[in-house]
Amino acid sequence: MESSSFENIRASRVEGTEVYNPQGDHLGQIDDLVIGKRDGEVKYAIMSFGGFLGIGEEYHPMPWNTLTYDPEKGGYVVNMSKDQLQDAPHYARQKEPDWADPAYGKRINDYYGTPPFV
Amino acid sequence: MESSSFENIRASRVEGTEVYNPQGDHLGQIDDLVIGKRDGEVKYAIMSFGGFLGIGEEYHPMPWNTLTYDPEKGGYVVNMSKDQLQDAPHYARQKEPDWADPAYGKRINDYYGTPPFV
Repeated sequence: MESSSFENIRASRVEGTEVYNPQGDHLGQIDDLVIGKRDGEVKYAIMSFGGFLGIGEEYHPMPWNTLTYDPEKGGYVVNMSKDQLQDAPHYARQKEPDWADPAYGKRINDYYGTPPFV
Repeated sequence: MESSSFENIRASRVEGTEVYNPQGDHLGQIDDLVIGKRDGEVKYAIMSFGGFLGIGEEYHPMPWNTLTYDPEKGGYVVNMSKDQLQDAPHYARQKEPDWADPAYGKRINDYYGTPPFV
């Protein structure tokens, strides 16, 4: 099962998966994915962070390739500190960005130092 | 919004979208997506079909690139008849295939005549 790149998973299984940094700090959990309608690429994983019952919660879109699945932790690992995460692009539930806006995508990719997905 | 390939959408918005054939027959609706953990590609859209309240429902995984979004219909269009769909690989909810099994992926791609995603 780990032998090839054929490691497929249902999107709804990804949602809810915990996210940690390499130091083991719990950063949040995956709330949703953002995909390209035409190219079928997973662009971002949206991590939810903080809040209680959805109140005060923040959503951090992260480029998919910044996440690595760690079977031991049973979650994804992202190489960033909590401070770095605080400064990353994020939004409140009521203020969801326009995913079709390339400028927002550029902000995310610039922050994480990953190539823009356009 | 339609001007570039930067047409991103949340995965959870794709789920529930109706699927039609070019003749306008309603085929089913998107239940989930199957993505590659490493390459971040959307491999299959799982379409649910038939049944009532989840009973008797069948799940048809279709290669993502067989689906075209039609804004007029407000859903995806797949170029196949209902008969072709009946013969396509599918499973009952209780018998979900192992998505990590390349042989199952090959069956799907062979049926739809799309390149294997390995």
